[in-house]
Amino acid sequence: MDFLQNNLIYCIPALGLAGIIVMMIKSAWVNKQDAGDKNMQELAGYIADGAMAFLKAEWRVLSIFVVFTAALLAYSGTITEIKGIPMHSSWIISISFIIGAVFSATAGYIGMKSATKANVRTTQAARTSLKQALKVSFTGGTVMGLGVAGLAVLGLGGLFIVFLKHFNVVSVNSVEMKTAIEVLTGFSLGAESIALFARVGGGIYTKAADVGADLVGKVEAGIPEDDVRNPATIADNVGDNVGDVAGMGADLFGSYVATILATMVLGQEIDVKDNFGGMSPILLPMVICGLGIIFSIIGTWFVTIKDEKSNVQNALNLGNWSSIVITAVASFFIVKWMLPETLNLRGYEFSSINVFYAIIVGLVVGTIMSIVTEYFTAMGKGPVNSIIQQSSTGHATNIIAGLSVGMKSTVIPILVLAGGIMASYHFAGLYGVAIAAAGMMATTAMQLAIDAFGPIADNAGGIAEMSQLPPEVRERTDNLDAVGNTTAATGKGFAIASAALTSLALFAAFVGIAGINAIDIYKAPVLAGLFVGGMIPFIFSALCIQAVGKAAMDMVQEVRRQFREIPGIMEYKAKPEYEKCVAISTKASIREMMMPGAIALITPVIVGFTFGPEVLGGLLAGVTVTGVLMGIFQSNAGGAWDNAKKSFEQGVIINGETFYKKSEPHKASVTGDTVGDPFKDTSGPSMNILIKLMSIVSLVIAPYIAVKAIASEHKQEVRKEIRIEQKTDSLGHTITDTLTNTTDTLKF
Amino acid sequence: MDFLQNNLIYCIPALGLAGIIVMMIKSAWVNKQDAGDKNMQELAGYIADGAMAFLKAEWRVLSIFVVFTAALLAYSGTITEIKGIPMHSSWIISISFIIGAVFSATAGYIGMKSATKANVRTTQAARTSLKQALKVSFTGGTVMGLGVAGLAVLGLGGLFIVFLKHFNVVSVNSVEMKTAIEVLTGFSLGAESIALFARVGGGIYTKAADVGADLVGKVEAGIPEDDVRNPATIADNVGDNVGDVAGMGADLFGSYVATILATMVLGQEIDVKDNFGGMSPILLPMVICGLGIIFSIIGTWFVTIKDEKSNVQNALNLGNWSSIVITAVASFFIVKWMLPETLNLRGYEFSSINVFYAIIVGLVVGTIMSIVTEYFTAMGKGPVNSIIQQSSTGHATNIIAGLSVGMKSTVIPILVLAGGIMASYHFAGLYGVAIAAAGMMATTAMQLAIDAFGPIADNAGGIAEMSQLPPEVRERTDNLDAVGNTTAATGKGFAIASAALTSLALFAAFVGIAGINAIDIYKAPVLAGLFVGGMIPFIFSALCIQAVGKAAMDMVQEVRRQFREIPGIMEYKAKPEYEKCVAISTKASIREMMMPGAIALITPVIVGFTFGPEVLGGLLAGVTVTGVLMGIFQSNAGGAWDNAKKSFEQGVIINGETFYKKSEPHKASVTGDTVGDPFKDTSGPSMNILIKLMSIVSLVIAPYIAVKAIASEHKQEVRKEIRIEQKTDSLGHTITDTLTNTTDTLKF
Repeated sequence: MDFLQNNLIYCIPALGLAGIIVMMIKSAWVNKQDAGDKNMQELAGYIADGAMAFLKAEWRVLSIFVVFTAALLAYSGTITEIKGIPMHSSWIISISFIIGAVFSATAGYIGMKSATKANVRTTQAARTSLKQALKVSFTGGTVMGLGVAGLAVLGLGGLFIVFLKHFNVVSVNSVEMKTAIEVLTGFSLGAESIALFARVGGGIYTKAADVGADLVGKVEAGIPEDDVRNPATIADNVGDNVGDVAGMGADLFGSYVATILATMVLGQEIDVKDNFGGMSPILLPMVICGLGIIFSIIGTWFVTIKDEKSNVQNALNLGNWSSIVITAVASFFIVKWMLPETLNLRGYEFSSINVFYAIIVGLVVGTIMSIVTEYFTAMGKGPVNSIIQQSSTGHATNIIAGLSVGMKSTVIPILVLAGGIMASYHFAGLYGVAIAAAGMMATTAMQLAIDAFGPIADNAGGIAEMSQLPPEVRERTDNLDAVGNTTAATGKGFAIASAALTSLALFAAFVGIAGINAIDIYKAPVLAGLFVGGMIPFIFSALCIQAVGKAAMDMVQEVRRQFREIPGIMEYKAKPEYEKCVAISTKASIREMMMPGAIALITPVIVGFTFGPEVLGGLLAGVTVTGVLMGIFQSNAGGAWDNAKKSFEQGVIINGETFYKKSEPHKASVTGDTVGDPFKDTSGPSMNILIKLMSIVSLVIAPYIAVKAIASEHKQEVRKEIRIEQKTDSLGHTITDTLTNTTDTLKF
Repeated sequence: MDFLQNNLIYCIPALGLAGIIVMMIKSAWVNKQDAGDKNMQELAGYIADGAMAFLKAEWRVLSIFVVFTAALLAYSGTITEIKGIPMHSSWIISISFIIGAVFSATAGYIGMKSATKANVRTTQAARTSLKQALKVSFTGGTVMGLGVAGLAVLGLGGLFIVFLKHFNVVSVNSVEMKTAIEVLTGFSLGAESIALFARVGGGIYTKAADVGADLVGKVEAGIPEDDVRNPATIADNVGDNVGDVAGMGADLFGSYVATILATMVLGQEIDVKDNFGGMSPILLPMVICGLGIIFSIIGTWFVTIKDEKSNVQNALNLGNWSSIVITAVASFFIVKWMLPETLNLRGYEFSSINVFYAIIVGLVVGTIMSIVTEYFTAMGKGPVNSIIQQSSTGHATNIIAGLSVGMKSTVIPILVLAGGIMASYHFAGLYGVAIAAAGMMATTAMQLAIDAFGPIADNAGGIAEMSQLPPEVRERTDNLDAVGNTTAATGKGFAIASAALTSLALFAAFVGIAGINAIDIYKAPVLAGLFVGGMIPFIFSALCIQAVGKAAMDMVQEVRRQFREIPGIMEYKAKPEYEKCVAISTKASIREMMMPGAIALITPVIVGFTFGPEVLGGLLAGVTVTGVLMGIFQSNAGGAWDNAKKSFEQGVIINGETFYKKSEPHKASVTGDTVGDPFKDTSGPSMNILIKLMSIVSLVIAPYIAVKAIASEHKQEVRKEIRIEQKTDSLGHTITDTLTNTTDTLKF
């Protein structure tokens, strides 16, 4: 025990490394599987090549952004004082940022690579048995999950050790420790920036390719969907991986890292004397998330079925619940072992057992939000049925029903989230809010494995269809695909919940670093900030939706050009230039996401430096509230429209009459599905990134705006020590009084 | 001057009375006009009867609600102390509430009566000249405008005098004065409650009747639109008046009253010694709004044209701008005359000239928001054109374009609103925010005259068409109708702006009465309140949209029954039971608005008493932010879809090709218009009521939750004087320290 106590800090990256090693073993196992006949391999090869082409093109643009931002961060790190007040950042934050970006990109690469290998092998396995098909597809998903979680824990844990040594940190309550953690925020900023490109750009990409391929291929050229002669068909298939695998992976990688980091920032303020050199509240989130990787691996053992008749969903649920329960139980012992009996954050006192309760709150919030998302988007349930019923009276009533379902679906998640905030705060103050998020994210590896399984099964079905394999193969892949649709919905719920809790954790951390102790919306400028913040998700959504339309038009032009200029495509004599379509789509998507991306990155900087930290806090609150609402609304409306349309495949009963595909109500449902596409795959999920990115940018600039605010008040006065006087208000919060003044003195 | 100073308080209701007298003269003039031939009169008679049938049915239900709520208020007014802390309300608040409700209902009655008389007389006048048609229709609108503003000022001003006498108020800074103003909030609550029924119920009504009439009449029975054989056609025409005239009127009546009241509440806290017995900050909003009636009457003189070729829009603009400019100029002198050189509200010091600047800010905000609304919904402008272009690729892209336009249209209004908050606060603190709203509302009589002119012209055109009058008559009414479409859009912008500013004014007043001096969203429960508040406009919108569908189905059943059970309808031998359809639609709309109405009324009560005033403040902020956003989004998307559809009447050019009605792109535009109908006429405008009603309910319960919060802290301690100690924080706010504690001591 003694040994572990002293060396606990080294165990953290080791846990990440363990995850990566298991990932490699699983990845090798997938590669070893039979990839089927030549036809299947060729189809899969196109998709894999296209995915790589996308990544390459994306990375080219990304590298410019990363270098530019890193330079900016390096410069800011060299500032040693602002108007006499010492700064304690370092240029090393730029290195931290670059590593975060590279790790996030690597996680995306691993996921894409694994998914595009597992898809065809799942198809081949489905020739043997459902059991084997599930094993291959789920293992493919597990590679992604372990890659994301492993790299995150390895990166954070490893860099933390390096920074502790580099800055010669000798005590928790030192300027050096502050610097080390501030520099670590760069890692999170890097990760979230890549997520912006992956999620928003990817979201635009996948829908642009989809619409572009359909418009020219199906409508103009009259060739079927997924026909190899269509130059955009590979882009379309790549898009599925880009959006559902890489986008989701980058999103959760960002949440995972940001959550741990925010908890560390808050943990640093807790004085625990001897526990692990006073570092136990800082190390706790990393330990729980690191062990969560191991518990997720254990969970994967339960994801197996007996025979053809077994229920796949139950197997996934068993695995998921196993890892959650083990994490919950282990958290109890970890908390008891690591933390002292009582803790105190900014005057709020709580016991170690309450930290455990806060973790449970996080697990419960995540679970309920997933369940609600599933209910509102699942076939056969009330909400989707209401859309089906209202499809009978036309396109307009279908749309109205879907919009109504989406809006209604916000109620329970918001109440649960609000309850979660209050409960976790009640248990362990702001540290409780952050650790709740960390608890929820602990099983990210498992969540992502289940998420990524969906698109793999989907692709496997597509390959089976295109290769015209025997019906029992398609039956098996259809079985997996149906389960995949459900997990896609629950995955989205989990992603939104994680983004919301992460933002709140970052929000709490921001307030501490920005040197304010209140965000008072009764002050007019703060209220104005709240309004402007609330508006940003609306314009961001509008730009994302619009971007899909514009990018699709670019794709249409390129496909038309290829049909015109390359002779022999239609006769299978010439191969279309798939990679050009991929490049066009990538370019268009990256161009179109510049504007929304810029809004997310620049707004906090402008508001923070112009109006100070408290107004920026108001802005962040506004963005988070409407961002979460718009995210749930758009994702669920889109999901419900999608499944309403899919319901027509088996036939639906409206007023006693049965309707199938090609009926009038089905046509109305297709309209809803098309409207829902950018909602659920572009603008909806991009809300996750928007709220997290704006929070993390604010956290990174927080020390500067805090000091600037102080400086503008006490212009000539040189103050070596910022924290001078502490007092306790009636709630028991410790107020750092000198810093408090910084916001009050803003002149409007 | 001396006489006026002492008797100024009596001049205020006199100004209201003057407005009502002018209204009566104008109303008599309209009645005197020729109502056309028998056919026209019969058609108009059906509509007028139907409108009255709606009002009667509405009032029956309303009276139960009013009596119940009045009883509750009367009981709460009898509470003299809560746990030893003295309360200073009175049972008279219930009288105040009833008068508010009756006045609001009366204003709605006057507007409906006037509109249903002016419509057919406008048609008849259009047989002579455009000049005469404009005169009749605009005078009809003026009756509504003057009725609303006159009754509001008469009611508020008159009751204020009565309460001052009744409670023996001898000084401004007395408990009696507090009581008098608290009792006056009942008037505002009454007005806003009626607005809930008028706006939400009316919104559901009009769209239910519209859809119901179309589905059975046009589709099933194959008779044209507006055919007298359709039992629902009168309900449909009534609906236009119910929504656009009565709904808008009640909405603005509520805003007008609430704004003045909120400014009075804040004004009561300003100590001005001798000016008008220390009452000048209290009287100022009433004086400005009272004189605004006179300036609006002056403005109406400018609304006239020379001949057939004159521009009607310019005439309306000239009238509008005249009244705004006169109000602005007069405000300067009124402020200088009434207020002392410097004022102080809660430690924020400002000069009288700054109060004038704040008024100007209000006028500017209202104007810009109207202009932006017009831009985003007008034919021939970019946003509507983008929807037309995207109609060429089908229903789905039309919907996507409209949603995108609606979301984008939030940006400038929110930035203007945020700027307005900051500027008016900068000039005159919280009093500035409230007086800005009052300044904006001062010309309400003129705004409503222009608003109500639209549906009158619309109805006039309908009657001309049904009566098959000569083409030059329809040309003239079409000219007026086109202008009416524009004024409808700007009117909606004004209504949203007024609701937003009113809510902010109420918010500021609430904080004072609730005994808190901050709403700190950094406190977890307050943040949770913000989230829940933000969610309410989503569920409210969803319920409104859904209600339209359900109510329309009821209407369909009734129309089918009449066709089946009344023989001879189709042969014009039997008259359909119009009033049954009207009753069905009214009943359905009132039933369907119960749930959203209950949410608006009960949520603040539950949250306030359970979690205390600060959490309730967070809730209100959340409701206001997303309510304003959802209001702008839905209203503008709906308006843009509507005009995109209308554009096809004259033909639109898409990719070089011209498309007219019945073309495929036109069909797509009809889908958008149908989706937009509940958006722009039901859920969108209902946001105005939602945010105002929740704020006014909070204001009414504020004294109770403030005291309850104190009581739960100092359980056994009897405190006769609440305000004990005052201190000033670094911003210069005066903090009432004892009351401050009330929120901090909430236990979560």
